[in-house]
Amino acid sequence: MSMSDSAYSLFVQQQTDRGIDVEQVKARLKELKVETPSWGYGDSGTRFKVFKQVGVPRNPFEKLDDAAQVHRLTGICPSVALHIPWDKVDDYDQLQQHAASLNLTLGAINPNLFQDDDYIFGSLCNSNPAIRRRAVEHMLECIEIARTVNSSIISLWLADGTNYPGQDSIRGRKHRLLETLTEVYQALDPNMRLLIEYKFFEPAFYHTDLGDWGMAYNMALKLGDQAQVLVDTGHHAQGTNVEQIVAYLLDEQKLGGFHFNNRKYADDDLIVGSVNPYELFLIFYQILDAHADANKGIQQTAENIAYMIDQSHCIEPKIPAMIRSVLNVHTQYAKALLINLDEVKAAQEKQDVLGAENAVREAFEFDVTPLLHVVREEMGVPINPMRAYLESGYADSIKPRGKGGASW
Amino acid sequence: MSMSDSAYSLFVQQQTDRGIDVEQVKARLKELKVETPSWGYGDSGTRFKVFKQVGVPRNPFEKLDDAAQVHRLTGICPSVALHIPWDKVDDYDQLQQHAASLNLTLGAINPNLFQDDDYIFGSLCNSNPAIRRRAVEHMLECIEIARTVNSSIISLWLADGTNYPGQDSIRGRKHRLLETLTEVYQALDPNMRLLIEYKFFEPAFYHTDLGDWGMAYNMALKLGDQAQVLVDTGHHAQGTNVEQIVAYLLDEQKLGGFHFNNRKYADDDLIVGSVNPYELFLIFYQILDAHADANKGIQQTAENIAYMIDQSHCIEPKIPAMIRSVLNVHTQYAKALLINLDEVKAAQEKQDVLGAENAVREAFEFDVTPLLHVVREEMGVPINPMRAYLESGYADSIKPRGKGGASW
Amino acid sequence: MSMSDSAYSLFVQQQTDRGIDVEQVKARLKELKVETPSWGYGDSGTRFKVFKQVGVPRNPFEKLDDAAQVHRLTGICPSVALHIPWDKVDDYDQLQQHAASLNLTLGAINPNLFQDDDYIFGSLCNSNPAIRRRAVEHMLECIEIARTVNSSIISLWLADGTNYPGQDSIRGRKHRLLETLTEVYQALDPNMRLLIEYKFFEPAFYHTDLGDWGMAYNMALKLGDQAQVLVDTGHHAQGTNVEQIVAYLLDEQKLGGFHFNNRKYADDDLIVGSVNPYELFLIFYQILDAHADANKGIQQTAENIAYMIDQSHCIEPKIPAMIRSVLNVHTQYAKALLINLDEVKAAQEKQDVLGAENAVREAFEFDVTPLLHVVREEMGVPINPMRAYLESGYADSIKPRGKGGASW
Amino acid sequence: MSMSDSAYSLFVQQQTDRGIDVEQVKARLKELKVETPSWGYGDSGTRFKVFKQVGVPRNPFEKLDDAAQVHRLTGICPSVALHIPWDKVDDYDQLQQHAASLNLTLGAINPNLFQDDDYIFGSLCNSNPAIRRRAVEHMLECIEIARTVNSSIISLWLADGTNYPGQDSIRGRKHRLLETLTEVYQALDPNMRLLIEYKFFEPAFYHTDLGDWGMAYNMALKLGDQAQVLVDTGHHAQGTNVEQIVAYLLDEQKLGGFHFNNRKYADDDLIVGSVNPYELFLIFYQILDAHADANKGIQQTAENIAYMIDQSHCIEPKIPAMIRSVLNVHTQYAKALLINLDEVKAAQEKQDVLGAENAVREAFEFDVTPLLHVVREEMGVPINPMRAYLESGYADSIKPRGKGGASW
Repeated sequence: MSMSDSAYSLFVQQQTDRGIDVEQVKARLKELKVETPSWGYGDSGTRFKVFKQVGVPRNPFEKLDDAAQVHRLTGICPSVALHIPWDKVDDYDQLQQHAASLNLTLGAINPNLFQDDDYIFGSLCNSNPAIRRRAVEHMLECIEIARTVNSSIISLWLADGTNYPGQDSIRGRKHRLLETLTEVYQALDPNMRLLIEYKFFEPAFYHTDLGDWGMAYNMALKLGDQAQVLVDTGHHAQGTNVEQIVAYLLDEQKLGGFHFNNRKYADDDLIVGSVNPYELFLIFYQILDAHADANKGIQQTAENIAYMIDQSHCIEPKIPAMIRSVLNVHTQYAKALLINLDEVKAAQEKQDVLGAENAVREAFEFDVTPLLHVVREEMGVPINPMRAYLESGYADSIKPRGKGGASW
Repeated sequence: MSMSDSAYSLFVQQQTDRGIDVEQVKARLKELKVETPSWGYGDSGTRFKVFKQVGVPRNPFEKLDDAAQVHRLTGICPSVALHIPWDKVDDYDQLQQHAASLNLTLGAINPNLFQDDDYIFGSLCNSNPAIRRRAVEHMLECIEIARTVNSSIISLWLADGTNYPGQDSIRGRKHRLLETLTEVYQALDPNMRLLIEYKFFEPAFYHTDLGDWGMAYNMALKLGDQAQVLVDTGHHAQGTNVEQIVAYLLDEQKLGGFHFNNRKYADDDLIVGSVNPYELFLIFYQILDAHADANKGIQQTAENIAYMIDQSHCIEPKIPAMIRSVLNVHTQYAKALLINLDEVKAAQEKQDVLGAENAVREAFEFDVTPLLHVVREEMGVPINPMRAYLESGYADSIKPRGKGGASW
Repeated sequence: MSMSDSAYSLFVQQQTDRGIDVEQVKARLKELKVETPSWGYGDSGTRFKVFKQVGVPRNPFEKLDDAAQVHRLTGICPSVALHIPWDKVDDYDQLQQHAASLNLTLGAINPNLFQDDDYIFGSLCNSNPAIRRRAVEHMLECIEIARTVNSSIISLWLADGTNYPGQDSIRGRKHRLLETLTEVYQALDPNMRLLIEYKFFEPAFYHTDLGDWGMAYNMALKLGDQAQVLVDTGHHAQGTNVEQIVAYLLDEQKLGGFHFNNRKYADDDLIVGSVNPYELFLIFYQILDAHADANKGIQQTAENIAYMIDQSHCIEPKIPAMIRSVLNVHTQYAKALLINLDEVKAAQEKQDVLGAENAVREAFEFDVTPLLHVVREEMGVPINPMRAYLESGYADSIKPRGKGGASW
Repeated sequence: MSMSDSAYSLFVQQQTDRGIDVEQVKARLKELKVETPSWGYGDSGTRFKVFKQVGVPRNPFEKLDDAAQVHRLTGICPSVALHIPWDKVDDYDQLQQHAASLNLTLGAINPNLFQDDDYIFGSLCNSNPAIRRRAVEHMLECIEIARTVNSSIISLWLADGTNYPGQDSIRGRKHRLLETLTEVYQALDPNMRLLIEYKFFEPAFYHTDLGDWGMAYNMALKLGDQAQVLVDTGHHAQGTNVEQIVAYLLDEQKLGGFHFNNRKYADDDLIVGSVNPYELFLIFYQILDAHADANKGIQQTAENIAYMIDQSHCIEPKIPAMIRSVLNVHTQYAKALLINLDEVKAAQEKQDVLGAENAVREAFEFDVTPLLHVVREEMGVPINPMRAYLESGYADSIKPRGKGGASW
């Protein structure tokens, strides 16, 4: 038996002894879908500098080419989020066919309400009705694109806000937002969802119109069932318990999805799981716990959660950074699947603080590498996707694209 | 003309020229009511040390005596919040009569759900139904006390939460809370309000069951019109725009009141206005702006906002610290009343960022001392309440109480 | 007597009664010098968008033209900081003559160690000696420019850092920094100072090589007396007591100067004094208190503090934003000058917390508008510089410059 | 071969293949010493409530009894920190003999400069010389106790600070501190170290006299080689890179030791490794990296680092909470020992961001349970110390102590 085989059989024995059904774990690991963002393959940076990298895609088609590499190697990234107008093309059928040829589908459509000169004082919240109109039209255009490319998700990140006290009426902007979003919402097809993102600060520095989960949730509540909240893991104040918000939204059936990334201070958009992997694990724990309760008929919960990556690779090469991100998500999801939820609940019922904490943390301590190797083998992807990428020569093959590709 | 008279007539001229109706400002300054908390007169401190002060009241009657000084000198503190069981007495009629004899009424009733050994793992959210029962019974007792003392407000600060990941089910606790609060809510008389406070952290360190305004708001929404949110100015993550939350809740007609204090990092419970006076001013700006809009029929807003102080004077003497707090509130309210809201709106409509900002900030720059002196004179209270207190000999008169009075 | 005259004579009487020497206050207000940054007149923004404004200067000469307006109207901004290479010109004599013709001098030279492709992994700390060499050469070039334009300050903001754990050796980078800075330091003329700035995060997100005042101070200590610390008011963690750091550095005679701006969460680079004016006042209190002690021979302190503005006006027009900033600095400095330091000390000696706090805060409450009007009158500048600017027609006169001027 | 044996032999093979010398790792794991604090066994809580637990030790002797259990089961906690006066006894020889009889030694002496009524406005920084004298005397008494019990460490946590702007002279207090600490320092025996702790806030809320590492470091620098900095992992602003401070102090040879704990927002004093285990791992990475460089003669570094736990178990039972803490430290230390530092450096030299990050993170992913089992077996302690504790009956055996034991 190879070391790898030994490691896996040991793992299976160990987990089986703990009451974990490894086959079920494997099934769920294979089902996980993580959408990568088209803009994660392009150049990005800070306000101080965008370091242009060689080989960055020059158009949406090349972004899909790169995303296809990530899916080919990880097996769990079959869809790609688009950002309009960054990914605007003349012929979306052609783009979709290109995606299909790469074994990809087109995912969430992300409108851009922050890069037009008109939006200097806001878009959907702007006091100027002509600019609100423009923003609504852009949203409607995005819904139309979603319809064309068979996407069912509109991800709304609203950068609106103000930089100074008094600059605009906070309540007035709230009313305008409800009005404009209502029109957008009514244009949705029945199969579509509007995922409303919130953000603590930046690019607005005094107040952000959708500044926290409560504001996004309240808006989604007023709009209806097709509106849900999108949690970007980097969009919270320091010290915020993100997994609590996740649990709360799950319980209200308003958790629409995630924008995964990581940060140390602000919205740093670093590789997910690179600064605080335990937080990502605890987020998955809340999701799995909610779903287990729903399966037992204890409590209803949000379903159909869209897992999406939203990062900005300033200094590291884009494709391997994306692969690393996807692997980190897979890893923490795998660890969370090893939590024996019955054991946790039993300790909780006894109010055994240390026992309950241990039952959760213990799963985090396992090395899931052998498990993921087997999962990947069974999915027909390389057991070590990063090494496979580095050895693939793909990075060299895209060098002719040169510097100065797509950026935001 | 005395210097003081000159200063006031100059002030009137100046403000009249700006389009401010000084008589109306004075009327509103006289109407302001700031409730002081009985516990603010007792000893308090940090987890490391409670420094006992000489003269601290030994019982609820003496707390009222001290609160009466604050009202006598400031003229705007006619009610006192009670904390049960700290202020438990055998005969509430007697307490109320004592209050009346001091020209005071009894204000918000604050239940205590954190100091009983039973509450080590929570009160209304506890997984143990017997403890939830106990907590509900305590809430019902507080409603009964409110009924007895003619108070219409129950201020609920829920300290419940967990210290470790996995310790208890976040969603389970949320369900328990809705269940217990529903029972409490149904016991309210029609004239009563349940004000739900939220807090970012402490005493729970991993998750707090009502951790932010969104959770308190959502709970109030589910309970009904008599449930509103209570904003403690110290209970937010760093960088939070508190006045935005105020504006948001005003607009949802869910702003029930405030617990005023100030802080630099956590819930420091310092004298309101001592660390960032501009924030307090901006909170009043949002309130006055909302009320002005409501008066014009533009937007409905929350009314009947309860202004309450909630501080913990660790090292400074209690009564003058409370006077200072009340004066700071009065000062910032006075400054906010000098904002020419029409001018702000005009600048906002032109999207004139600097003009709008200036129209707000300008009011903050005025010295409202001459105005407040006249207001106090007309109210029949000392124009300098702090000096009047220091010269009153009251501090000496209570020295016989000794050290070791009421504390929490 | 005009209202304005009455206001001032009342002010003088009031302050004289408090023991404040108004003539001395006026003298110091006239002496204050606030340097404005050339880059504050150009376009800037966030990583999401730079909104281009009409009339933005197209070159360093035009930047000086705009800065001259600020000085002409405020009277306290006689120098302009340059940023190299943004302000690189062929002939610095010509630039200096242009400045002189505008009644300006050229101030601190700010090297740029973050916008070259080579600096993707750092500049002075880079593990690649060729890149460190390049960075040192740039610093030496800046010293040479300083020499040419008679500037005595090199302001070093080092953007170096890493984005991921393990990316580089934290200690190794520290050693490289000391080595490169030593070379730079040795090239300084005897009259020159190297002001070392620190920053909590951004553009590096995991660790910043000069991440706090302690690291900048320690470096300055190792380099020698001509190296001091530069405090940017926006470069601290939330909750940091900036005025304490100021007091600390004053006492160590290592406070070289300030980059003034304001923020609510991160390094927002908003108009100084617009978010928390009290903090700015408290900073000046520490400075004035230290200088008073030094004058009395009690404690030595830093002298020759360079007051510089460093802001990024994303949505507001540049020149009036700069005027607003300068006015805010002047206002808070004026208020701090009204602190009766003897009264504060007397209360401190009695350990009278509320008395001492009051003696400081009281000065903040005064309206210094009448004082500043007279100061400006005596200085021969408009009493209301902002209004004067708006009425001057200057904004219209620069419209022909069009959009797309200098930016970073 | 048992599953456990298989796991270990697999582990050895795996690590050997990676170039890790497992025997050396084991040796270092056996050498690790983690001091537990006497106060960690007593009751503690928040300012709102101390929940008294049954079985808490009633005196220093019983605290040692409990600490002995932790050492007996983990094998790496041979010393116990004392807090004076909490652990004051008439006869320190007797206490030391009791310790020796339990296989323990007495560790760092922690003075208490915050719980005396005199210290309301500070201790070593107090403007009242009599109180400073008292504080110095207490420090001298602690040095004498250290001498008596053969302890070589004085851990100074200075709670001094102010709650309001202006309350006292920040610079004056700094001078007083240097003066008092100089006297304390001079009383140290040559083998003793004074470890100076810093803290961001609490119990002082406006400014803390030793508020960050820079202030503690600067003080240590002025005092001399026997003064070093003590890093409490919970005493930083949010977003602070603690491992960078560790690396910095190591490089300056001023890292004296740690107070381990964990937190989510403030100084929560939770079980170390329970909120962000990766941070603890990264701290050890910096230490091991520095020591490796020192061994190679590349850079000098701090040695003789004192690893101490400082926690406050509010709701969980004390002894198992301490065991969990020690195990978490051992676990993260073990993981850090699996970092192939040569591989990291090789990637760093190539400026391969993802490769270097991976080389560090990879070690974190390993399950070190088999390794720690063997280490414990070889040390003659239970392989699962927590289970051994729970099965030991010790918790029952101390129940007769009742409630109301030692607390702070």
